[in-house]
Amino acid sequence: MSTIIGAAILVLAGQAASQLAGRGFPDCINGPLKNNTVCDLSADPLDRATALINAFTLEEKLNNTGSTSPGVPRLGLPPYEWWQEALHGVASSPGVNFSDSGDFSYATSFPEPILMGAAFDDDLINAVATVVSTEARAFNNYQRAGLDFWTPNINPYKDPRWGRGLETPGEDPYHLSSYVHALIDGLQGGYDPKYKRIVATCKHFVAYDMESWNGNFRYQWDAHINSQDLVEYYMPPFQSCARDSNVGAFMCSYNALNGVPTCADPWLLGDVLREHWGWTDEQQWVTSDCDAVQNIFLPHGYNETREEAAAQALIAGTDVNCGTYYQNHLPAAYEQGLFDISVLDQALVRQYSSLVRLGYFDGLAVPYRNLTFADVNTPHAQQLAHQAAVEGITLLKNDGTLPMQITSNMTIALIGDWANATTQMQGNYFGIAPYLHSPYYAATQTGATVYLAGVPGGQGDPTTNSWLPVWDYAEKADVIIYVGGVDISVESEGMDRVNIDWTGTQLDIIGQLAMYGKPMVVMQMGNQLDSTPIVSNANISALIWGGYPGQDGGVALFDILQGIAAPAGRLPVTQYPADYITQIPMTDMSLRPNATSGSPGRTYQWYTGDAVFEYGYGLHYTNFSAEIGGSSPSSYGSSSNTSYSISDLMSGCKEKYLDRCAFQTFSVDVKNTGSVASDYVTLGFLAGQHGPSPYPIKRLVAYQRLHNIAAGQQQQAALNVTLGSLARVDDYGNTVLYPGDYALMIDTQPLSFVNFTLTGDEVMLDKWPQPPTPRFQETDYFVGGYGSTYGEKLLINGTI
Amino acid sequence: MSTIIGAAILVLAGQAASQLAGRGFPDCINGPLKNNTVCDLSADPLDRATALINAFTLEEKLNNTGSTSPGVPRLGLPPYEWWQEALHGVASSPGVNFSDSGDFSYATSFPEPILMGAAFDDDLINAVATVVSTEARAFNNYQRAGLDFWTPNINPYKDPRWGRGLETPGEDPYHLSSYVHALIDGLQGGYDPKYKRIVATCKHFVAYDMESWNGNFRYQWDAHINSQDLVEYYMPPFQSCARDSNVGAFMCSYNALNGVPTCADPWLLGDVLREHWGWTDEQQWVTSDCDAVQNIFLPHGYNETREEAAAQALIAGTDVNCGTYYQNHLPAAYEQGLFDISVLDQALVRQYSSLVRLGYFDGLAVPYRNLTFADVNTPHAQQLAHQAAVEGITLLKNDGTLPMQITSNMTIALIGDWANATTQMQGNYFGIAPYLHSPYYAATQTGATVYLAGVPGGQGDPTTNSWLPVWDYAEKADVIIYVGGVDISVESEGMDRVNIDWTGTQLDIIGQLAMYGKPMVVMQMGNQLDSTPIVSNANISALIWGGYPGQDGGVALFDILQGIAAPAGRLPVTQYPADYITQIPMTDMSLRPNATSGSPGRTYQWYTGDAVFEYGYGLHYTNFSAEIGGSSPSSYGSSSNTSYSISDLMSGCKEKYLDRCAFQTFSVDVKNTGSVASDYVTLGFLAGQHGPSPYPIKRLVAYQRLHNIAAGQQQQAALNVTLGSLARVDDYGNTVLYPGDYALMIDTQPLSFVNFTLTGDEVMLDKWPQPPTPRFQETDYFVGGYGSTYGEKLLINGTI
Repeated sequence: MSTIIGAAILVLAGQAASQLAGRGFPDCINGPLKNNTVCDLSADPLDRATALINAFTLEEKLNNTGSTSPGVPRLGLPPYEWWQEALHGVASSPGVNFSDSGDFSYATSFPEPILMGAAFDDDLINAVATVVSTEARAFNNYQRAGLDFWTPNINPYKDPRWGRGLETPGEDPYHLSSYVHALIDGLQGGYDPKYKRIVATCKHFVAYDMESWNGNFRYQWDAHINSQDLVEYYMPPFQSCARDSNVGAFMCSYNALNGVPTCADPWLLGDVLREHWGWTDEQQWVTSDCDAVQNIFLPHGYNETREEAAAQALIAGTDVNCGTYYQNHLPAAYEQGLFDISVLDQALVRQYSSLVRLGYFDGLAVPYRNLTFADVNTPHAQQLAHQAAVEGITLLKNDGTLPMQITSNMTIALIGDWANATTQMQGNYFGIAPYLHSPYYAATQTGATVYLAGVPGGQGDPTTNSWLPVWDYAEKADVIIYVGGVDISVESEGMDRVNIDWTGTQLDIIGQLAMYGKPMVVMQMGNQLDSTPIVSNANISALIWGGYPGQDGGVALFDILQGIAAPAGRLPVTQYPADYITQIPMTDMSLRPNATSGSPGRTYQWYTGDAVFEYGYGLHYTNFSAEIGGSSPSSYGSSSNTSYSISDLMSGCKEKYLDRCAFQTFSVDVKNTGSVASDYVTLGFLAGQHGPSPYPIKRLVAYQRLHNIAAGQQQQAALNVTLGSLARVDDYGNTVLYPGDYALMIDTQPLSFVNFTLTGDEVMLDKWPQPPTPRFQETDYFVGGYGSTYGEKLLINGTI
Repeated sequence: MSTIIGAAILVLAGQAASQLAGRGFPDCINGPLKNNTVCDLSADPLDRATALINAFTLEEKLNNTGSTSPGVPRLGLPPYEWWQEALHGVASSPGVNFSDSGDFSYATSFPEPILMGAAFDDDLINAVATVVSTEARAFNNYQRAGLDFWTPNINPYKDPRWGRGLETPGEDPYHLSSYVHALIDGLQGGYDPKYKRIVATCKHFVAYDMESWNGNFRYQWDAHINSQDLVEYYMPPFQSCARDSNVGAFMCSYNALNGVPTCADPWLLGDVLREHWGWTDEQQWVTSDCDAVQNIFLPHGYNETREEAAAQALIAGTDVNCGTYYQNHLPAAYEQGLFDISVLDQALVRQYSSLVRLGYFDGLAVPYRNLTFADVNTPHAQQLAHQAAVEGITLLKNDGTLPMQITSNMTIALIGDWANATTQMQGNYFGIAPYLHSPYYAATQTGATVYLAGVPGGQGDPTTNSWLPVWDYAEKADVIIYVGGVDISVESEGMDRVNIDWTGTQLDIIGQLAMYGKPMVVMQMGNQLDSTPIVSNANISALIWGGYPGQDGGVALFDILQGIAAPAGRLPVTQYPADYITQIPMTDMSLRPNATSGSPGRTYQWYTGDAVFEYGYGLHYTNFSAEIGGSSPSSYGSSSNTSYSISDLMSGCKEKYLDRCAFQTFSVDVKNTGSVASDYVTLGFLAGQHGPSPYPIKRLVAYQRLHNIAAGQQQQAALNVTLGSLARVDDYGNTVLYPGDYALMIDTQPLSFVNFTLTGDEVMLDKWPQPPTPRFQETDYFVGGYGSTYGEKLLINGTI
């Protein structure tokens, strides 16, 4: 008897990747490729990659179609792992190999994007991304990472249940578009640098938005979205990635869009992504989400055979397959004549020309090759991780207890399942942090006596068993701080939340702690929960939202608490009342309220109910007044109504993409009328009656964070508003500048606004490429219902 | 600065329990209690317990109300942990303390009840339970466990999504009632022994049935059930526990029933449980599910204050609080005059009289005190664990490939995420097993060459990444065996399944493996999935359902595969088509189909759709004929119609509980007409038009497993049918014997049946105690809708 033992997938993938990472760069000096054009630094990147691929045999081409590429040993082309992660710092993933100790045993761990989104500070995001790409290059130089990172997740976060909302900067498409532009600039090193720092990957294209809800799974569900919603809401961040930021890679998603799995959709990956958005230089590529090509066959059941599914994806424009489905099934597909070799060549040329642009073949000519571990977690990076948390943390309630002076003769009861958090603070897609400063750590740094009760009252064990010490501590304490909420045990990849309440046990303990009548602060961690019971309890002094604050999160929270830093974060999502989830199924992708379905609408732009806290909400330790054009009147006038001719506006517009043309830069005078120096986030919202009805309540069109405005002092924000920001989207997905009434508003009370009117004929700024019809049959339509299933279809077709 | 660190709940509970377990028994010879009546072995147990409690101070009484009792050091009464688990073997839990090595480092681990249910063998269950109680006593003698075990979970398993269905023996209330009677007899050592072996705890009383579905959580949801469904379906196993099996303890559940949290419901715990079912000897107690008393306050919001919730539970009859809520809040409740001390005394007397009945105070007089680790995992226990798996494993498809002779010159490709299973085979609520014989282990024992690919194609990583070895192995193999399905990563406590399909990736790999055209067997593990695609694929030779088969599960599966044992298990649940879950919300507790709601009905008794495999389905390696009264005609006649007068039947009925009266014992001649010796499960179903319409399709009223019927031989089963089995339940929950047409059927083809008629007036066998009305307001009714929320209520009431 003999036995051969295979290995489990994840272990194998990890081992393979670390082995691959050890193989280094191709040798263009002495290796077999030295005379191939790919090693000619003066040649065009596309020509270089083409020459390389032309040297591949058919088998070598077919072998190098997966995320773990074996390379071509014959040619001295090393194996290469395409899959690295870096959502908020270089992160554990197949291609990233942290060492057990010493150099490269950690990397800077920033807050999750949902908290960085709350900072509304594009400069901060750019600086963070620059640190990430710097650290990534250092890891790469020592064969501990590749150069391609599958980040950012930039799907707009429209449903509070979504398990991956924490990975995004929030719910607003303009915000995400602006954020991702700053991010990609930092990750890649500019719009089109000679050598990209790293390649970023915008995912998940498009309308991913759900893990598992009521029988619908990300692997099989079909998102039904009309063209108006699609272009207005789901597409802008991706347009920003491709057209405006020149991102190096895209990832198609698990789901189908209107009947077609995204990785098999030539309209989406071709007509929209490459043609319409001008993402055509062939030095960029599309990867499937992991095993999304497999999913085209099952459970989508979109093709009759595995070979057809693989060929369809390749032809549609999925250049890299995360997984092995291409490697397994493209050979037979090719034998069956299902694709032309030129399509495979094109996919490989895209991948390797991208590597050329990263300097993969250029040895020490690449400026980033001198980065070492000394460039990882530098004092600057540490400061930035702290700053990112501080800027995002958002004050939601304060009866004047905050800022709170904590002295060494005080006693603090620090209670809750986040009180002594470690990796909880990193959320998901994280690497090994140099340190994880918990709230407890930060509390002890104040010099006060700290009674810690790390009660798992939150999500792990939702019972109050063994709570006795809590009451003892509360009785002894001068101040009670509860740190809880949700974490990735209830919201994570593969798992959507099933409610947005605080748990009964958490509310019970919070309520009882409040009865002691002492100063009491609640820190609401993770994503948004309906905090109504906390807000309405007069015995609770303050509520702070802390998200997933990263390596220095506890210190950032306590800096806010003590007033060492002043809070200026703004909620990047709506905090809905708990029953919101009873009013709209996750599968309903419509943004607008709908009397028939009972949907109250999605996001602050359309939600007709009363939010617990509105999008953009956030208190300060001081008071601000904000006035548009207040002290420095400019051409657009003040709050009086001004009129603009659309034809005049268009005649001054010289951009290739008309939506990019400037309308006006509105200055906003922001004055700190209180007594505490503070940042201030200027949010410019547009409202008014223009374009197709219904009209959104308001929509963000510009923002700027002002820093450290001293008490009594004033700063000026400049809100750049484009014609695209004024435009609306019609039923066909066209972006149109309409005549009508407009108002630009700043949300700080008292409201400051300017009204203006656009006159004349409407002008189409962007003509949306229409998808082939019909995309799907109405009988496939499951919105509002339960899960789709495929058993019967399989039975009928007998396809397995 | 000083720092005091509290501990996390579970760790603390575990430590406390192990410390407590080390304290041993009270010393009735030399201890302070020696002259207390509790130490008088000749006294009445109730008097003994009363004397003990009379010696407690008020504070000592209030301290000893939780699952972790500190005891009374002053009296030499040791601490005691009430919470032990033993679902299918002595299991890890607060009161059970396995040693790291050597003695007491393991206990026999039987299959999960869902697989033991498939054996339909009450003698087997009794034997298994006897082993469990023997091992529990051995653990207790060495202070490694208490004497109270919170098992069985006997809620009927009516919805395939329920995450704890694996803990139950299936969906049929008669089956569960019979099973649990045999089980409790084995656990406790008879109906009313002088010394109980251990105390069993029937849970979760009542209508628990859901973990988390669409915003409804076990902690807060309110099950709405009419009296007919309640008595007909949800109550019978609990009636069997209390009235017919004299179980020592009950557990009230998290949910509410018709508006009242079960642990706060005097009607449920008093009128029904104690009065109606005669569970009145005060040597039995009710515990709350863990923190279910807390849940009465929040999230149920049933009482306005914490103290009222605790007092209400105590008064309703919740004697023990799992957790600390009683200890925290009963003192203030008592000060507020919310309960009389006699109620607390009664609860404590119940607990300690129960311990008296376990011999806790009787030292070496207790016959089980001589059990040692030599009595744990004996050869008999090992054999029984193997037998229990073999008896339950159910053959669902076979084209003649099975039984399969495996020889040492054969090569097996063994693929799937269960192929090398370890604790997967134990499901949940398990202890440390002496060994875990996986399918891979069993395969290697055959002498064949085994290619193992433990692909996580199932639930952990639902992608096909890194599958390459699978195809190599399949190509090299003579036989392909796929072992997969679901496991507790998708169905477990706290987590209901969100679909009942095989995953797309599993179907993909199975389908592709089938293309090799080799003998191929699929072993479907965990609970039921819609296996239609496997059934309909002609290239798949056989399908075996293996459940969670325990410590020797792999060997049992391979014994069935090879014909070393013949399969005779029957499905204890319906295998529904995948879209069943789209037709009925988990919150819909109705059994009957409903045209208005669209419900197709629940369980084989009412489901109007086409099951993939019906309840009771199971193939053999031989053929059987079964005939009721075939070769030995008896008084009830044959298939010709016989008539009975209800008044005659009643006149012969002398039982206290009329439903227990015998109707007839039907003999069934079972002949093995094939060539392989085999067990046979005789299932007697009743159908016919009698009582309130609609009528169930059929319902199980008796069963018996016949063992090892040789080829060509015959055995006779005796199906005891009671008047209660003939009866139906009316709208008020009354159990009534109705005139009408009846048919008793055996489900083996060709169907054998007897028809008979009951004549005369209907007779009420059991008058159901009516609950107080109104139990709830219609506006609270969420069936079919989304989750209930409590944020607004809290806001309005300001109760936290």
